Amino acid sequence: MNPTAAILIIGDEILSGRTRDSNMHFLAQELARVGIDLCEARIVPDRMQAIVRAVRELSAAHDHLFTSGGIGPTHDDITADAVAEALGRPLSVREDARAILQAHYDRSGIPLNEARLRMARIPEGAELIENPVSAAPGFSVGNVHVMAGVPRIFEAMVASLLPRLTGGTPLLSQSLRILRGEGEIAGPLAALAADYPDLSFGSYPFQQDGAYGAHVVIRGADGARVGEAMTRLAALFPEDRAG
Amino acid sequence: MNPTAAILIIGDEILSGRTRDSNMHFLAQELARVGIDLCEARIVPDRMQAIVRAVRELSAAHDHLFTSGGIGPTHDDITADAVAEALGRPLSVREDARAILQAHYDRSGIPLNEARLRMARIPEGAELIENPVSAAPGFSVGNVHVMAGVPRIFEAMVASLLPRLTGGTPLLSQSLRILRGEGEIAGPLAALAADYPDLSFGSYPFQQDGAYGAHVVIRGADGARVGEAMTRLAALFPEDRAG
Repeated sequence: MNPTAAILIIGDEILSGRTRDSNMHFLAQELARVGIDLCEARIVPDRMQAIVRAVRELSAAHDHLFTSGGIGPTHDDITADAVAEALGRPLSVREDARAILQAHYDRSGIPLNEARLRMARIPEGAELIENPVSAAPGFSVGNVHVMAGVPRIFEAMVASLLPRLTGGTPLLSQSLRILRGEGEIAGPLAALAADYPDLSFGSYPFQQDGAYGAHVVIRGADGARVGEAMTRLAALFPEDRAG
Repeated sequence: MNPTAAILIIGDEILSGRTRDSNMHFLAQELARVGIDLCEARIVPDRMQAIVRAVRELSAAHDHLFTSGGIGPTHDDITADAVAEALGRPLSVREDARAILQAHYDRSGIPLNEARLRMARIPEGAELIENPVSAAPGFSVGNVHVMAGVPRIFEAMVASLLPRLTGGTPLLSQSLRILRGEGEIAGPLAALAADYPDLSFGSYPFQQDGAYGAHVVIRGADGARVGEAMTRLAALFPEDRAG
C-alpha cells in the first residue's frame, strides 16, 4: 500500500474567486511521481477554527498532510498558529529560523521587523523546510508539512521536502482516446473493469468540433497488467481511436 | 448574513494530477456575484464512502452544497447513488428525465441504451437542473445541487440553477497594488484592519522582475465602508502604488 496524503489550501482569495489555485494540481502531479496517493483536497478560509478542524481531521486520516498558504508576515497569516493549536504544540520564534531571516534581510538591507519576525515562529519539534526563493522557511511537524501559498515558493518548498519523504510505487497509467460517446463505451468498459479489480478505470468525456469522445484511463501499480488491460480495451474499439 | 455554500468536486482525475479542475474557480466567481458565501471546497475520489461522508458533512454545515462530476453513464459515475444514500432517499429512473434523454438521443439517431439510461436515475423529491449542452440533467435534492464535471456542462448547469437560489448581498471588494514587501505593509495594515471589524483585509504577495509587492484586498458588504478604508490604506502608502 502506498502512503496516503491530503492537501489543505488556506485562503479567502481562492474561495472568493479572486485567485485560481495552482498548488493542488502541482502537488498532485509531484506526489503521483513518487508514489504517494493524494486522497483528498480541501480549501478553507483564513479562519482559525476552520483551519484547526481541517488540520486535525486530515492529519489523522492520512499519512501526510500538506498545507499551502497563510505563513507570511501579515495579520491574516495564521496557519502556523492554527497548526500548533491543532497538534497541541507550543509556537515560538526559533533561533535557526530567525537566523535564516536575519541573514536574508541583512543581504537586502531591510530590517527584520516585528511583522517579518512572525515568520520565524515554529511549532516545537518541527523540522524546517527550506525556501530558496524568499528565505522564510516552511516546516514539518508530525505528519503535517506547512508551506507557502505563493506558487513559486510552494513549488520550491515541495522540491526541498519530497526527497525526505518515503514514497511508494508510482501509479502507472495508460490512456486511450476513443471517438464514441461515453454511452457506447460504458457497457464494454464496465465488463473489462470487472476483470481487473486491481486496476482503476476512468472515463473522461470530451466534445470537440461537434464530436463526442472520451479519454479512458487505466491506472495501476503493475505496468504489465495495465498494458494487458489496455490491449484488450484497444481491441474493443479498433476503428475509433484517434490521436 | 449571506447564505453559505460548499463545493464538492468528485474525481480521481483531479487528485491524480491528470486534470486541473476549473469548476471550483468558476463557481466561486458566480457565487460572489450573487452574494452566496463559498466557505469550503473539497475534492474526493470516485469512491462511494468518501462521497457519502463528504455530502453529509458539507450539506449539514452549509446552506447549499454544489457537487461537480460523476453523473455520466460509465461505471465510475456514482455521484447520484452516493447523494441518494447520503440523504436517505430512493434512487430510480424518473420519467421526465428519461423523456429528456429519449428526445435528445432520438434527434441524434443514437439508442438510449442501459448505460445512458443511468443518467435518468434521480433521487426521490429532486428538482431537475437543465443541461442545454448534452441534455442529461443535474438535480437539486434538499440543499444539494448535483452537476456534471465537464466544464462546459457544469457552467451551463450553474447558469440554469443560480436564478432559482436566493442570494444575499454581493461582497464588494477593492484592491490596491503596493510596491513594498509584505513585511513593511503588515504593521500598518493590521492597525487599519482593527478599525474595521466589519470588513476583511487580505494581503497577497507577488514578486515581479525582482521587485516585491502585494495586492491588498478589502472586502465587505457596505461599499461606503470599503471605500473609506481603501482611502485610508492608499494614504498610508502614497508613493508606492502602481498599476
